[in-house]
Amino acid sequence: SKYAYVKNYELPDNLLPGTFMIMRIDGHGFHRFSTEHSFAKPNDERALRLMDCAAQSVMDEYKDIVLAFGESDEYSFLFRKDTKLYNRRQTKLLSLILSLFTSSYIFHWPKFFPDESLNYPPSFDARIVLYPSAKEVRDYFAWRQVDTHINNLYNTAFWALVQQGGESTTRAHALLKGTVSAQKHELLFSRFGINYNGIPARFRKGSVLVRDEVKDARESGGHDFVPDAGTRTDLSEGSPLPDSSLAAGATPVAHQGKKKVKAIKTVRILHEDIVRNEFWDARPELLDG
Amino acid sequence: SKYAYVKNYELPDNLLPGTFMIMRIDGHGFHRFSTEHSFAKPNDERALRLMDCAAQSVMDEYKDIVLAFGESDEYSFLFRKDTKLYNRRQTKLLSLILSLFTSSYIFHWPKFFPDESLNYPPSFDARIVLYPSAKEVRDYFAWRQVDTHINNLYNTAFWALVQQGGESTTRAHALLKGTVSAQKHELLFSRFGINYNGIPARFRKGSVLVRDEVKDARESGGHDFVPDAGTRTDLSEGSPLPDSSLAAGATPVAHQGKKKVKAIKTVRILHEDIVRNEFWDARPELLDG
Amino acid sequence: SKYAYVKNYELPDNLLPGTFMIMRIDGHGFHRFSTEHSFAKPNDERALRLMDCAAQSVMDEYKDIVLAFGESDEYSFLFRKDTKLYNRRQTKLLSLILSLFTSSYIFHWPKFFPDESLNYPPSFDARIVLYPSAKEVRDYFAWRQVDTHINNLYNTAFWALVQQGGESTTRAHALLKGTVSAQKHELLFSRFGINYNGIPARFRKGSVLVRDEVKDARESGGHDFVPDAGTRTDLSEGSPLPDSSLAAGATPVAHQGKKKVKAIKTVRILHEDIVRNEFWDARPELLDG
Amino acid sequence: SKYAYVKNYELPDNLLPGTFMIMRIDGHGFHRFSTEHSFAKPNDERALRLMDCAAQSVMDEYKDIVLAFGESDEYSFLFRKDTKLYNRRQTKLLSLILSLFTSSYIFHWPKFFPDESLNYPPSFDARIVLYPSAKEVRDYFAWRQVDTHINNLYNTAFWALVQQGGESTTRAHALLKGTVSAQKHELLFSRFGINYNGIPARFRKGSVLVRDEVKDARESGGHDFVPDAGTRTDLSEGSPLPDSSLAAGATPVAHQGKKKVKAIKTVRILHEDIVRNEFWDARPELLDG
Ligand SMILES: Nc1nc2c(ncn2[C@H]2C[C@H](O)[C@@H](COP(=O)(O)OP(=O)(O)OP(=O)(O)O)O2)c(=O)[nH]1
Ligand SMILES: Nc1nc2c(ncn2[C@H]2C[C@H](O)[C@@H](COP(=O)(O)OP(=O)(O)OP(=O)(O)O)O2)c(=O)[nH]1
Ligand SMILES: Nc1nc2c(ncn2[C@H]2C[C@H](O)[C@@H](COP(=O)(O)OP(=O)(O)OP(=O)(O)O)O2)c(=O)[nH]1
Ligand SMILES: Nc1nc2c(ncn2[C@H]2C[C@H](O)[C@@H](COP(=O)(O)OP(=O)(O)OP(=O)(O)O)O2)c(=O)[nH]1
Ligand SMILES: O=P(O)(O)OP(=O)(O)OP(=O)(O)O
Ligand SMILES: O=P(O)(O)OP(=O)(O)OP(=O)(O)O
Ligand SMILES: O=P(O)(O)OP(=O)(O)OP(=O)(O)O
Ligand SMILES: O=P(O)(O)OP(=O)(O)OP(=O)(O)O
Ligand SMILES: [Mg+2]
Ligand SMILES: [Mg+2]
Ligand SMILES: [Mg+2]
Ligand SMILES: [Mg+2]
Ligand SMILES: [Mg+2]
Ligand SMILES: [Mg+2]
Ligand SMILES: [Mg+2]
Ligand SMILES: [Mg+2]
Ligand SMILES: [Mg+2]
Ligand SMILES: [Mg+2]
Ligand SMILES: [Mg+2]
Ligand SMILES: [Mg+2]
Repeated sequence: SKYAYVKNYELPDNLLPGTFMIMRIDGHGFHRFSTEHSFAKPNDERALRLMDCAAQSVMDEYKDIVLAFGESDEYSFLFRKDTKLYNRRQTKLLSLILSLFTSSYIFHWPKFFPDESLNYPPSFDARIVLYPSAKEVRDYFAWRQVDTHINNLYNTAFWALVQQGGESTTRAHALLKGTVSAQKHELLFSRFGINYNGIPARFRKGSVLVRDEVKDARESGGHDFVPDAGTRTDLSEGSPLPDSSLAAGATPVAHQGKKKVKAIKTVRILHEDIVRNEFWDARPELLDG
Repeated sequence: SKYAYVKNYELPDNLLPGTFMIMRIDGHGFHRFSTEHSFAKPNDERALRLMDCAAQSVMDEYKDIVLAFGESDEYSFLFRKDTKLYNRRQTKLLSLILSLFTSSYIFHWPKFFPDESLNYPPSFDARIVLYPSAKEVRDYFAWRQVDTHINNLYNTAFWALVQQGGESTTRAHALLKGTVSAQKHELLFSRFGINYNGIPARFRKGSVLVRDEVKDARESGGHDFVPDAGTRTDLSEGSPLPDSSLAAGATPVAHQGKKKVKAIKTVRILHEDIVRNEFWDARPELLDG
Repeated sequence: SKYAYVKNYELPDNLLPGTFMIMRIDGHGFHRFSTEHSFAKPNDERALRLMDCAAQSVMDEYKDIVLAFGESDEYSFLFRKDTKLYNRRQTKLLSLILSLFTSSYIFHWPKFFPDESLNYPPSFDARIVLYPSAKEVRDYFAWRQVDTHINNLYNTAFWALVQQGGESTTRAHALLKGTVSAQKHELLFSRFGINYNGIPARFRKGSVLVRDEVKDARESGGHDFVPDAGTRTDLSEGSPLPDSSLAAGATPVAHQGKKKVKAIKTVRILHEDIVRNEFWDARPELLDG
Repeated sequence: SKYAYVKNYELPDNLLPGTFMIMRIDGHGFHRFSTEHSFAKPNDERALRLMDCAAQSVMDEYKDIVLAFGESDEYSFLFRKDTKLYNRRQTKLLSLILSLFTSSYIFHWPKFFPDESLNYPPSFDARIVLYPSAKEVRDYFAWRQVDTHINNLYNTAFWALVQQGGESTTRAHALLKGTVSAQKHELLFSRFGINYNGIPARFRKGSVLVRDEVKDARESGGHDFVPDAGTRTDLSEGSPLPDSSLAAGATPVAHQGKKKVKAIKTVRILHEDIVRNEFWDARPELLDG
């Protein structure tokens, strides 16, 4: 129609090639949302697993995402450096991935919160940040995981004082003010018998989603493929929480090779250190082109 | 931490002041989604009402949106020209509103599709386009509504030929090829007895959400406030579909006046012409500062 | 060559259509430059005319510039709203116009400063700002001209105190501190016999460049075309300064009509009020599409 | 004034940190400019030296530029990766550097073209392109220098055919069509006795400006500092052209160390290969942070 000229006001927003894109999603007003949905304090395993599940939906759909890291109400996604997805159009990428994450969060809610119905629709903000080199990407993820550690140690001590120690929140804050890391460990242990390093890795380290190659059952002899996700996530810790989505991740989700070489990859969840070199040295493809 | 410098790579993206922002959301791959969820063809009233409901959630939350228009799998939102919301940060606005729209869509699904469970989480893309003046804003909405009309007339004729006329889809396409508007009206009437102007306005005109002032029940004497939304939407046409969300719209949702004058506004849904002047002349505030 | 891929890192930067672009150029470090080239204080007519000349070179070359305003070491250029010049590529427009302005400034220097050789090459910064409507464009030019007035009144009083009144610069500052406009007029008149409104309009109002239609001498009978620029610029005030470039402006510089109607336009310099409506009402084309 | 709000329409345009910026300047319409100023064909040494001189002015002023490369009517400038100059504001950097380059070109014209007066003010366009890593920066400069080689070999052969061989330009084009590099070398040698590698390196390789440390005369004993620029540029080839500006480059232009270690650097011109590793290996600081 004669009105179609308004389409010309849409301007291109392609992101610089050869640059790492990291997209971070963060819950909007989750202070209130966590309260209204009775999230356990300081960490609600159901809520964290639901975030992991939504993140996995995103990685299942967008193969150019090579790594994700989640903690609290946020998730970060790293694209492979040379992705051409949607021609690197910023808004297209941001909107589609954010929307799928949000949608999956609501969609999978009942599995993770069978006894807690959703009172109102939660939302998330998102941003894409460009990082020119591997160093900044490493530092980005270190930034998020160090943040996880700092917040979680503090929150663990704080809620121990309140929930187990019977302190007021005001007094708990006052007691922790100015303490360094070692003092919080000490306090947890001496006063509450809590070995901080004994609490679930998911709480201490956040969640790391990577794509790992799996043996192709059909090629390796036809016997049933048994996912060992259990040994790599803390599911083995005996969690009774549903995890159907992540279990599904153990079945081959993508055939990314051409014909001959079948490099079947599946999304795996880890709760390990991503600040140190080991994690990255073992996965050079993350920071490649 | 020493890694926090990576935050500096987040660059500002504030949008030009004094300019109209229109945000358009569009369903991702809704061709497949509508098929997999048995949407009625060519128009599924449940699906359209769910879109309206999600859009209303957005308007209930973001008061600087003054107008919305929906059709098919898309919705457009107009902000008041001088909005300072999130300091006009493009990505912040885009992400929060898109995420809330998506979330509401899934959240309200069961109300509109009580007999159809969601097979997989749908997603949407989004964009914000700037328009410098009232003229382009008028033309933008005319563009969308004319598109609604063209598509709907075609689809109505097409599916009549297929569903009622027993034509193959190939032949239906061939029959309609090259026909002008009047010929499609004529075909619908002569062959199927369908008066195109008699089909629901929601299908022909799309959905228009505006904020209308309502009398404040508490101030005007305390008698029950009875929404007349029914006469303004095609609910009066006897639809048995749930509409709790839009009904909720009839209760005052916002006190936008300061102290003295209470200008209570509620979101209303219309299905009228927004190409012609009448709609805009009656609502000068839409294109004001 | 195999290296040509680096060209892909050049990203588009087209500016929003239908929006007014104003480009402002400002002398870099002209505090020092004016000192090192013995500019008269507070206003050096040679320097101002040279700026006008450089601006005219720009308007002679870029026909989509409809208006320019200059004062001190700066010049602002307004493009017609719907210009398609270089497809509205920001950097292309900015760089070409800035470079031509700079080049013309140096090129024409000897004409305006016959007795002052250039000690070093001056430079300018530049920016393009978008304005959505006529109102902001009007206000932009009002902003610059009001700035001209405020600065010039202050500077005139300041230098009168120093040069004629024998005050130190410190004391001159102190004397003027906190005075309002009327007090500065009064001081100039009572102490130095200076009627502020009697000083050259170029100093008080800045320079305004517009395109005016001229009668085409060849069409209107062949008699000599006599520019009346003299009555419209303050050249009529008897300035002995060279002005060959602006004189050239009085000869038709462009045939902008097609064939029949010859609307020949020439760039004219004015020193009048552009804050009030008269200027704009007389030239509706400036703020048109 | 009440109009100052228009300043808010100036939006930030800071460039991504940690990324290499390369700014390229290119003569506007230099096909015509070279003709109107009787540039020698295919290479005019005066014109090329003037470009070098303007580029040096830029490097003398902007210390964060670590490398420049020029050929034909263009010059490229590399900033050190972590420059904070003008807070990495794109338009500020682009405009100031372009303006200084332009200004210097006109300012120094008479030194390089003593017998050719400037007919009209030339102008240049400019752009800044971001490159995320050393690889793209290397490839960028390889792109430009390979371009120099390809164009110059062709042009040398072309103009030999025309000027010495008496061929028409049409026929010269036809003769060269489809020839590869070796054939052009052969043609030049067999028909005109020209050893291509014997023509000036400036023409074959373009001009490379780097900052080299020089011994600080005052520290190293006080004897006169003798620049050896002559042996490193092809000035030693006996050029009679003025070169005062580049000679000036041999005097220490900047004290960039803090107190103890005086690392005095001066801009040097080279005409060597920058495609291969040697150049870069010898100057690791170019691609550092
Ligand atoms: N109880 C509980 N709260 C959590 C958990 N995970 C996140 N939250 C809450 C704690 C924080 O108040 C909030 C996350 O902090 P944010 O800085 O993202 O703040 P919030 O989302 O409220 O505001 P925002 O919209 O992001 O600016 O979410 C959890 O596992 N348990
Ligand atoms: N049956 C049915 N289909 C609908 C209805 N509303 C929308 N759709 C379908 C028809 C179209 O295939 C699709 C909307 O067209 P689009 O151009 O947005 O395509 P689609 O969403 O498939 O792709 P996209 O991801 O937007 O590029 O949604 C409806 O009420 N009933
Ligand atoms: N004496 C004299 N000085 C003038 C004249 N026109 C401009 N100037 C000087 C006065 C100011 O110091 C300077 C213009 O002020 P700016 O704010 O543009 O400062 P400047 O160019 O020094 O710094 P900048 O690089 O623009 O940030 O130019 C003139 O006609 N006579
Ligand atoms: N005779 C001669 N011409 C030269 C020399 N250096 C550059 N030129 C001319 C040859 C080309 O026509 C022109 C450079 O090519 P460009 O692609 O930059 O074209 P031009 O500047 O005409 O157009 P543009 O405004 O950059 O799109 O400058 C020289 O040393 N001698
Ligand atoms: O989605 P289409 O095909 O209607 O066209 P578009 O929306 O302009 O394309 P895109 O979604 O890729 O911006
Ligand atoms: O959300 P915060 O407070 O952690 O800080 P931020 O995310 O940088 O702020 P914003 O969400 O406004 O970008
Ligand atoms: O100028 P060209 O033709 O070499 O090509 P370009 O520089 O990429 O084009 P533009 O100057 O229009 O950006
Ligand atoms: O140059 P100033 O100080 O008048 O102020 P500005 O021009 O807004 O600052 P900048 O030149 O740094 O954009
Ligand atoms: Mg935030
Ligand atoms: Mg949050
Ligand atoms: Mg958070
Ligand atoms: Mg689309
Ligand atoms: Mg769609
Ligand atoms: Mg659609
Ligand atoms: Mg400035
Ligand atoms: Mg200045
Ligand atoms: Mg100034
Ligand atoms: Mg070019
Ligand atoms: Mg050129
Ligand atoms: Mg060129």
